[in-house]
This record gives sequence, structure tokens and C-alpha cells, in this order.
Amino acid sequence: MNILVINAGSSSVKYQLFNMKQETVLAKGRVERIGMETAILVHEPAGKSDVSEVSEILEHTSAIRRVLDILVSKDHGVLDSIDQIDAVGHRVVHGGESFKNSVLVDEDVKKEIRRLFDLAPLHNPAHMLGITAVEVNMPGVPQAVVFDTAFHQTMPSHAYLYPVPMALYRKHKVRRYGFHGTSHKYVSERAAKFLGRPLEQLKLITCHIGNGCSCAAVLGGVSVDTSMGLTPLEGLMMGTRSGDLDPAIVPYAMAKEDLTLSEISSMLNKHSGLQAISGLSSDMREIVEAMEAGDKNAALAFDMYEYRIRKYIGAYAAAMNGVDAIVFTAGVGENSEVLRKKVCQQLTYLGIELDEERNRSGRGTEKAITTEASSVQVLVIPTNEEWMIAMDTYSLVQAD
Amino acid sequence: MNILVINAGSSSVKYQLFNMKQETVLAKGRVERIGMETAILVHEPAGKSDVSEVSEILEHTSAIRRVLDILVSKDHGVLDSIDQIDAVGHRVVHGGESFKNSVLVDEDVKKEIRRLFDLAPLHNPAHMLGITAVEVNMPGVPQAVVFDTAFHQTMPSHAYLYPVPMALYRKHKVRRYGFHGTSHKYVSERAAKFLGRPLEQLKLITCHIGNGCSCAAVLGGVSVDTSMGLTPLEGLMMGTRSGDLDPAIVPYAMAKEDLTLSEISSMLNKHSGLQAISGLSSDMREIVEAMEAGDKNAALAFDMYEYRIRKYIGAYAAAMNGVDAIVFTAGVGENSEVLRKKVCQQLTYLGIELDEERNRSGRGTEKAITTEASSVQVLVIPTNEEWMIAMDTYSLVQAD
Repeated sequence: MNILVINAGSSSVKYQLFNMKQETVLAKGRVERIGMETAILVHEPAGKSDVSEVSEILEHTSAIRRVLDILVSKDHGVLDSIDQIDAVGHRVVHGGESFKNSVLVDEDVKKEIRRLFDLAPLHNPAHMLGITAVEVNMPGVPQAVVFDTAFHQTMPSHAYLYPVPMALYRKHKVRRYGFHGTSHKYVSERAAKFLGRPLEQLKLITCHIGNGCSCAAVLGGVSVDTSMGLTPLEGLMMGTRSGDLDPAIVPYAMAKEDLTLSEISSMLNKHSGLQAISGLSSDMREIVEAMEAGDKNAALAFDMYEYRIRKYIGAYAAAMNGVDAIVFTAGVGENSEVLRKKVCQQLTYLGIELDEERNRSGRGTEKAITTEASSVQVLVIPTNEEWMIAMDTYSLVQAD
Repeated sequence: MNILVINAGSSSVKYQLFNMKQETVLAKGRVERIGMETAILVHEPAGKSDVSEVSEILEHTSAIRRVLDILVSKDHGVLDSIDQIDAVGHRVVHGGESFKNSVLVDEDVKKEIRRLFDLAPLHNPAHMLGITAVEVNMPGVPQAVVFDTAFHQTMPSHAYLYPVPMALYRKHKVRRYGFHGTSHKYVSERAAKFLGRPLEQLKLITCHIGNGCSCAAVLGGVSVDTSMGLTPLEGLMMGTRSGDLDPAIVPYAMAKEDLTLSEISSMLNKHSGLQAISGLSSDMREIVEAMEAGDKNAALAFDMYEYRIRKYIGAYAAAMNGVDAIVFTAGVGENSEVLRKKVCQQLTYLGIELDEERNRSGRGTEKAITTEASSVQVLVIPTNEEWMIAMDTYSLVQAD
């Protein structure tokens, strides 16, 4: 069975085609700048050379058409016919309280995703465009949706509610949802396998540190808390997002700088984080480079970023009354050995003993970066959200 | 030497008169409803019966006059003459970045406190009224100011800066200041004495849990982090304050409910916290009573409150790479054995072993509530901010 995984944004579509039996990626790629005359398709077929094409692609239906065309094209294709795609799985950011698991798309599901536009105005409408575009291009092919929020729907109410008037929850659904759920779930399962212990018996803290960053407390395989909240702004310091703040800063800054609601949101989401403190970059690689060259603002940005990760790890150890293993994943988590080192060196009170050689070597592989004697293991597990989406889609189609 | 300690609010003045040599309280009391015809003075002289009087008191100068009158009155007084008051110490909430220690009042100090009105619009103007009222009534008597923020001025920049555009710090002084500093400092010093260990060698987490709530990480006697921030809204869940939130909730709620800046601030400061979740009360005693009678909302409010304290303790253990002792203080911290029990029972991973009998007994005294074997000690230390203010005032006057 071949499954196409789609991550549709407002002006982009990312895709990955899996052969489920062989557990291989047949092709992956992306369309960017949808809506423009100079839209670009980048296609990476397995066993053939990569290709990129610039052309006018004005909406998502055409974008999906182009992806399907190239998947079966003579020079760059990996399939004989579109009929060889058995199902499509979509990433959907917000499943609200309605979706605790992945589901097959039907009219009710589409209606509910539309109802959630309000909670994820930048994401869910784009995902719907992707779903519709697949419907038009591949009528009759089953589609599944996999939600970033679903894994965290197991949080207890004392973790997901905010101490604000309950009317905000009842009327406007203000609560913690959490995001990156597919990633937190994937690395939790892989961590248990890596440790050779049943997931049901483990206390894990998973740190998805990429462009967006979140931590989760995963108790017995179940998410019991996570750092992102109503939106992906809360929690850790990120590339351009602030993370946690005194909430009073919002009205204070609005008054002082005469900002509108959309201007303050833009400031906190797009002009804060590493970028704001370093004045250089939102990219941890550039921050570390500048820090090592002696840049003080970069060093401050790094310290704030590291410190806030460390505090969340401490908080979640307290939330679960202990921790067996800490997992780093995503771009920065998988690749920044200096970040992992700084975090681990200041968590020796938990019984963590860093193995510097393990921390340095084996990039891209699943590994422990602590010594055998370390009473809490720290792991690096490359995330694979697309594979999780493909797996969920596969299971739903098989069960249908 | 006798020192009068004043805590002036916008419509109230609290006072306490100390004999510094004997370390005794000669009298304490408060004036409330200043500005009204029915203002009330409650006076509690040591060794005499308490008295309360209702009369018209229209501003702070008259309020201080009334306090001084009753301190030397025949029936309710404790002094022969006002001249026996050697100095006055004032609590001042916000010292900004200017004041890292308590200082004697002079023209420059008054100017600086006025410059900080903007950061503490509800508090600093009232404190200035108190200072002026003392000047008018007791010309020539030295006055000192003791700041809630001063103890936390030792925080490193990675703890006090927020990951927002640096212009907010440079232009508008947006940073973490922290509050309750006098209390955190006092209980830290007492904890070291109680443990019989040098403060310089201790990692302490102090939890001031009262109507307002804050935690501090105190490393070697120095505050390195605290949960309140630019304002006293951030951090723990409180009686009517929300504490930490996804900052995106602020613009979201403003848009959904069409709120002004002052309305959202009022919602988060005055209509959130225990009050909002329980729908019953902002008072932990009433919450616990209702919870024990089976009220589910009260139980939820309690759980959220406890959970957020526990997470801060975990975070600060990570911030300091360990903890030697945790201190509970202030109204709820000193009196709610059920809260302390719930917190401690879920921190056994730190090596905390609660002694239930110690936790129950000895109300009002300094005590450990953990067993001898517990590797982290948990203490209850009644706070005494007024005594700290008197002590600081005493030292400054002596040194002058």
C-alpha cells in the first residue's frame, strides 16, 4: 500500500509518498509560493535526481495536480499511475476538543475542521484547501486527518484549564491544547523501544526543539502536560516566538507602543524569541556560531533559550513526580550538541550524567547521550511526523 | 530605638511600631477607607485592649496624624511622646532597577520613586502619600524605604529578560522585577538559621503563598529567579490573579469579548485565579472546606493551584541544579497543611519525605515538616516583612 502524506499551508504544500509494506519513502517534495506566477515545485524521488520547476500555480488544486503529475512522470516519477496511491493522510494543526485521534475524512469531519478555523486561523483553512484539492484530483481515494493536538487530549483538567473566568472556556474554548503531538507521540514510542522498556511504565519528558519548540510530560505513554497552550505561542522561547511572559506585558506594551491586537500578536509570534534577543537570527546554528565568536547578545539569547528548556524539564519532573528519560528531537534538539550539553550539565541533581562523546557522535541516529550509570537517560530521537501520519492513515484505511 | 513601619495603600495605612532593642512590637494597626467620612482606625497596643474608631479621615496626612495621636494617647498609647519614634520605614512595592537595597529617603529618592509610578501605578503613588504624610507630621525624623523588588535585583539577565523585542526593555523597562522580596529574603535567612547551615551554601526555594503568591530560587542567599515578573500578575495561580497564561489569550479574549486594555487587566488581576475556577471564593480556607464537602469546582481550583506551585518548585530545582530546602510562608503557606501535604507527596523524586504529624502541629512556629531522613527539608517559616523593614531602617539610621 502506498500512502501520500500532505502538509498544506496557506501558500505551500509539502508531500511525502510512502510504500507502507517496505517502509520506504518513494518520493518527497514541496510546492511553495502558491498563488504566484513563480511558484516552485521541488521534487526528490528515491533513486532519481532531485528536480525543481518554476511555473504559475494559482491555488491548491493545481498544486496537488502538479505533485501527482510529477509522481507519475516518465523522468521524475516513482509510480506508473495515480491509482497506485491507496490513501492520503493530512496533517491538521488544530483538532480542538473534538478529535482525540486521527480519523478518516467525511462530511462531518470537514464540518468540524471548519468550525475550528477560529482557533487556528493560519493553519486549519489551509489544511482544508489541501483536503479539497485531493478530493478534486483523486475522487474516491480515502483521506485521513492527523491532528497536532490529538495526542495531548489526554491531559487532566487541572493541566489544560487556565485560571481565568470559566466563561472563556465555555464560550470561546480557551484552554491548553498543545501542539507537535504527532512528534511527541512518535518519539515517546521510539524512546520506549530504544530503552527496551514498556511505554506504559515510563515517565518521559519529550523536548521538540525546532523552529517551534515544545516540551511534553508523557506518563505511561499518555500526554499529561505540554508547554504550548491555546496557541503555539506559549511555553519555550523559540526562533521568533516569545513563549512564556507576564501576561500583563501584553496590555502594557499595547498601551506604551499604541499597538493593535494584530500588531502585538505579530510582535510576539514573529519578532520575538532568539531573533529579538540576539538581534541576529532566529536560527540556533547561527546563534551558536556567533556566541562561539564572542557575540554577547547571541550568548544571552542562547542562555535564555537553554534556561527555559531546563526549567520546563524540571517542572515536568515535578508534574510526574520523577522522570525516567528525557528525549530531544526536531531540528535543534537533534543537531545542537552544545544545547543538549548545557541542559544536561545543569541537571545532575536528577542523576543525569552526560557522555560527551555520545553527545557529539552519531548524528541522525537514535542514541543515548548519557552514561550507562546515569539514573535518568537522555536520548536523541530524530522525529518523523510524516511517517506517523502515514501509519495512522494506514491503520484507519485497513480498519475501514 | 523605636521604629514605626508604614505600609501605605491608596485608601489605607497599615502600621507597626517596634522597640528594636527589645525586639518587641509596641503596637500595630491600620487605617482603612481613607477619603471617607466613615474611615476606621483599628489599633492594637501591646498590653492594652484593642480599639477601633470611626471618623472622617480625608487624606493620608490626617491618617498618619491619627495614628501618631493614638500612639501617645493616654488610654491606648504606648509612648509618652512622638519624639520617642526615632525613624520610620516604608514598604515600597516597586524600586525598578534603581534600588537594589533599602535607602534613606532624600529628594533624589523621592524623585526616583515618582519616576517609577508608571511601573506600579496602584502602589507607588500611595507609598509617596505615606512618605509625605510622615514628613509633614514628623519633620526631621529619618525615613527609609524598603522595596519589594530589591531582593530580586540579583537575578542574572537570562532570568530577568523576556524574549521580546529589546526595545521594550530599553524604552519601557519591560523585564522581570519580582515582588515579595522582603518576605523571600526574610524566610531565606530564617531557614538558614533553622537548618544551622550557612545561607551562602544553601539552595532554597521559597514559596510565599498568600493572597498574592510567588516562588523564588535563592542560591547562596541571592535571588536568582522568581515567579512574579514585570507585575505581580505572572507566575503562580492566586486568589483572584491568573498567574501564567498563554500570552495569546490576552488578545484572543480582548477580541472575543470586546474588552479594553483596562478591562482585560481587571479580568486577569481581579476576577481570575481561585475565585474564577471555584466560583466560590478567593480564600484557600473556603476552597479547602468546600472541597472536603465534595465541591468539584473547589477541588479543581485546589488542584490547579497546587499543581502550579509544584511545577515552579520543580523548575527552580532545575534552575539551581538541585535544592536543599523548600520554605512555605505567608497566609496559605503557613496555614494550609493540606496544600503542603499535596505538594510534598508528589515530590518524593527529590528525596522529600513528609512527616504528617509535623505538618499538622505547631501552627505559627518555625518548623520542618519533613522527616529527619528526608534529603530535601521542607520548612514552614512565618514571614515578617514589617520586622525586616524595621531592621533595614534601623541599619540605615545607625550607619548614617
